[in-house]
Amino acid sequence: MSRIASDKYRSKVMSAEEAAKFINNGDRVGFAGFTGAGYPKALPDALAARIKDAHDRGEEFKIASYTGASTAPEHDGALAAVDGIAMRMPYQSDPIMRNKINAGVSEYNDVHLSHSGPQVRYGFWGTLDVAVIEVTAITADGKAIPSSSIGNNNVYLEKAQRIILEVNAWQSLDLEGMHDVYSMKLPGENTAIPITSAGDRIGSKYYDIDWERVVAVIETDAEDRNTPFKPLDQESKTIAEELLDFLGNEVKQGRLPKHLLPMQSGVGNIANAVLVGLNEGPFEQLTSYTEVIQDGMVDMIDSGKLLVASATAFSLSPDAATRMNDNAAHYRNHIVLRPQEISNNPEVIRRLGVVACNGMIEADIYGNVNSTHIMGSRMQNGIGGSGDFTRNAYISCFVSPSLAKNGDISAIVPMVSHHDHTEHDVQVIITEQGLADLRGLSPKQRAKKIVANCAHPDYRPLLEEYLERAHAKANGAHTPHDLAEAHSFHRRFLESGSMKKA
Amino acid sequence: MSRIASDKYRSKVMSAEEAAKFINNGDRVGFAGFTGAGYPKALPDALAARIKDAHDRGEEFKIASYTGASTAPEHDGALAAVDGIAMRMPYQSDPIMRNKINAGVSEYNDVHLSHSGPQVRYGFWGTLDVAVIEVTAITADGKAIPSSSIGNNNVYLEKAQRIILEVNAWQSLDLEGMHDVYSMKLPGENTAIPITSAGDRIGSKYYDIDWERVVAVIETDAEDRNTPFKPLDQESKTIAEELLDFLGNEVKQGRLPKHLLPMQSGVGNIANAVLVGLNEGPFEQLTSYTEVIQDGMVDMIDSGKLLVASATAFSLSPDAATRMNDNAAHYRNHIVLRPQEISNNPEVIRRLGVVACNGMIEADIYGNVNSTHIMGSRMQNGIGGSGDFTRNAYISCFVSPSLAKNGDISAIVPMVSHHDHTEHDVQVIITEQGLADLRGLSPKQRAKKIVANCAHPDYRPLLEEYLERAHAKANGAHTPHDLAEAHSFHRRFLESGSMKKA
Repeated sequence: MSRIASDKYRSKVMSAEEAAKFINNGDRVGFAGFTGAGYPKALPDALAARIKDAHDRGEEFKIASYTGASTAPEHDGALAAVDGIAMRMPYQSDPIMRNKINAGVSEYNDVHLSHSGPQVRYGFWGTLDVAVIEVTAITADGKAIPSSSIGNNNVYLEKAQRIILEVNAWQSLDLEGMHDVYSMKLPGENTAIPITSAGDRIGSKYYDIDWERVVAVIETDAEDRNTPFKPLDQESKTIAEELLDFLGNEVKQGRLPKHLLPMQSGVGNIANAVLVGLNEGPFEQLTSYTEVIQDGMVDMIDSGKLLVASATAFSLSPDAATRMNDNAAHYRNHIVLRPQEISNNPEVIRRLGVVACNGMIEADIYGNVNSTHIMGSRMQNGIGGSGDFTRNAYISCFVSPSLAKNGDISAIVPMVSHHDHTEHDVQVIITEQGLADLRGLSPKQRAKKIVANCAHPDYRPLLEEYLERAHAKANGAHTPHDLAEAHSFHRRFLESGSMKKA
Repeated sequence: MSRIASDKYRSKVMSAEEAAKFINNGDRVGFAGFTGAGYPKALPDALAARIKDAHDRGEEFKIASYTGASTAPEHDGALAAVDGIAMRMPYQSDPIMRNKINAGVSEYNDVHLSHSGPQVRYGFWGTLDVAVIEVTAITADGKAIPSSSIGNNNVYLEKAQRIILEVNAWQSLDLEGMHDVYSMKLPGENTAIPITSAGDRIGSKYYDIDWERVVAVIETDAEDRNTPFKPLDQESKTIAEELLDFLGNEVKQGRLPKHLLPMQSGVGNIANAVLVGLNEGPFEQLTSYTEVIQDGMVDMIDSGKLLVASATAFSLSPDAATRMNDNAAHYRNHIVLRPQEISNNPEVIRRLGVVACNGMIEADIYGNVNSTHIMGSRMQNGIGGSGDFTRNAYISCFVSPSLAKNGDISAIVPMVSHHDHTEHDVQVIITEQGLADLRGLSPKQRAKKIVANCAHPDYRPLLEEYLERAHAKANGAHTPHDLAEAHSFHRRFLESGSMKKA
């Protein structure tokens, strides 16, 4: 049975190949898709073929691709593989896409996730030509039920001159009612976002679509890119335990209530280990105001530890995705999916007092964090929502193993090679070596604590040596640096393959 | 006639020397004071004498000093001169204080102004022992009228175990009604801040003081540290003109309404030049949601160009301060002074869509900005509220002359020596050379534009050379850097006294 109950929407059903013809060279396209959930499954491949044909004929064909966040091989990967993307924003994680960005084939702007939608609304990214949005179903009266992510879909639907919908039968019909679509307006027209607790619903269950602009509807039946989590390793478990101990002590000191505050956790294995730890830990009646729903959160809902989670997308393993699809009618009582301009909004994050926990590539001795670049130059995935949460959190933590590449890379360095979160915003750093609570400390005090608590013993002497030399060279000063040696760890790695001294 | 109409408050009147005895070694003290306005005029000097006596006796005596922002020689300067400050936060600008911080005599934590008060409320800065707050008067029923700044006073009054008030007869009694005291609560207890336009009043005209904790009241009659502005120089005028042209074009393109959006401007001569430019320019019915009221804003209220300005403090020249004091009954219809946790709150700044304009020390070719450190190590004043506004602004601009120190320092460098605002947050850079609109550009595109439009011609070839070399060394990559040379400009300056090549 068709997921399209509306006759007029059914009249626009066509193949992805036909629909792809509505996208032309130079177009700016707003795609659905956030952490491998809810991206269009058919159109990007058909568009990639259309682009390749044009290139084969010697014609130019590149688009600007705006999304929610990362998508999937059959989306970012397919379009990048044919050199089809001129400009990409915001977060991405596809290996082909990443290579094209670093090769200069595609330009990339690493905007905060909470900024990306509003900036399109403001016109800072030019006229939006096309929106390509996945939905779960279209009701008889033309209401569109969102699928497994919302991301910037509300903005793209609002602004695009042409709208292409993909109706994906793989998505559970019971997702209906899980979403809460609420859009910001232009400055001067906004009032307060009326969320005062993580589970508050303030918007619509459906997208508001202007039928006049719908040019194509595609029917698909394809699962999301759901990536299995690796089995929990000891390092991740240790880091999670340290964070839980820290939170327990904050409760004891009266700085956190016993049910904590809404938790945010980044994507990945350590973040999931934290969730597993919380699920096995002493805290009850938890809430989450975060960006993505991971496996650990689904488990916490099952166990009753987590009352409600607010996010903009799923990021599940295939197993958890199956559980979600089978039991969406249950989970929708505990999960609210929002546009990313709301899930990541500073207003709500600061009001609720979120406890944030995000991964990092490296931190430096003074507490600056690099989330995006390898050795200063090469883009990995992007800042994502880490800045939105970190800056506005009640407490903001960054987590990473202290070593990478079999010990040849230290996650603690004299000066990070790229700055995404500055000393002003980073409060707690955790590695498997230990935790550094930086609140209320000066740079020199922070340096001592980070080196002693978080750096791997293999790198501690090198870091202490740097600190001493910097102190002497900078004649003390507030944040002693020896600018000739500040990036010596990275330079050694680039030259010799290891940050260690030969 | 006494400014203290309440008998019980009058019963606590004593000398500053007597009051200073309520402050002991190791105490954490929350002081009034923001950009040289509304700081205590008598207590700090008396406390400094008490500290000096203790030191002369060989006793330890240092306090933690928390303020709103910068104060004055007779406050920060006096306490720093006797080595009386163990820890200072947030913004400071006194030369003696700065030297003690860079000499390691005083620790310093450079927290965002919007974070400073809430973090004290949360207990992240320990128990607050004493609050020392300047007020204009105390009414018969014990209400305290704030003076020329609010800053974090509401938080310090709320949290301190002992309260010392200074009642300053120099402040105009007609300030009564200009203030809007509204306090945030602990996470979980907050609702939306109900401000939807810059001039909205949502709180009280008075401080809510717990009489039981008041230990001393001091009567003073002393003017604020009001610093004259330098006459407008050509560079500042040129920068202001470029900003105005840019804003005019944004209106033309439909990205700004014709009355613009609420303006924020940092402190200093260029910021004041922008205000002068706005006052002479084509825009009418303007509003301001900013941190401090400068001379230019008072002129704009006089001319009718500025309908209303919201801030947390004055930062006036002696002339403008006299005008303010003589006409406060008029100006209070156009000015709202708020706690800095509200004036600088991301929620309100993003809701209103503020256009932010802040000074900087340097920017790099990829759009990162250093607001705080000289040559990477030495603290100047601190980040102030620039991060609060920049991150959440509708459009965020940074301004600086392209050269300093007679041309030996370039404000545009390959990599900033300290990162306060990252590439994710900086949208427009303006020097007297020109303006670079960075919205929607990749790092490589930004680099070309910043070097071509903003760098001084003396440094352009060096920057282009760096870009080429970095590009080759990093094999293209997203943000090409040569980490061995990224700080070569700064290193040359430290070694030779000039960023230029010999």
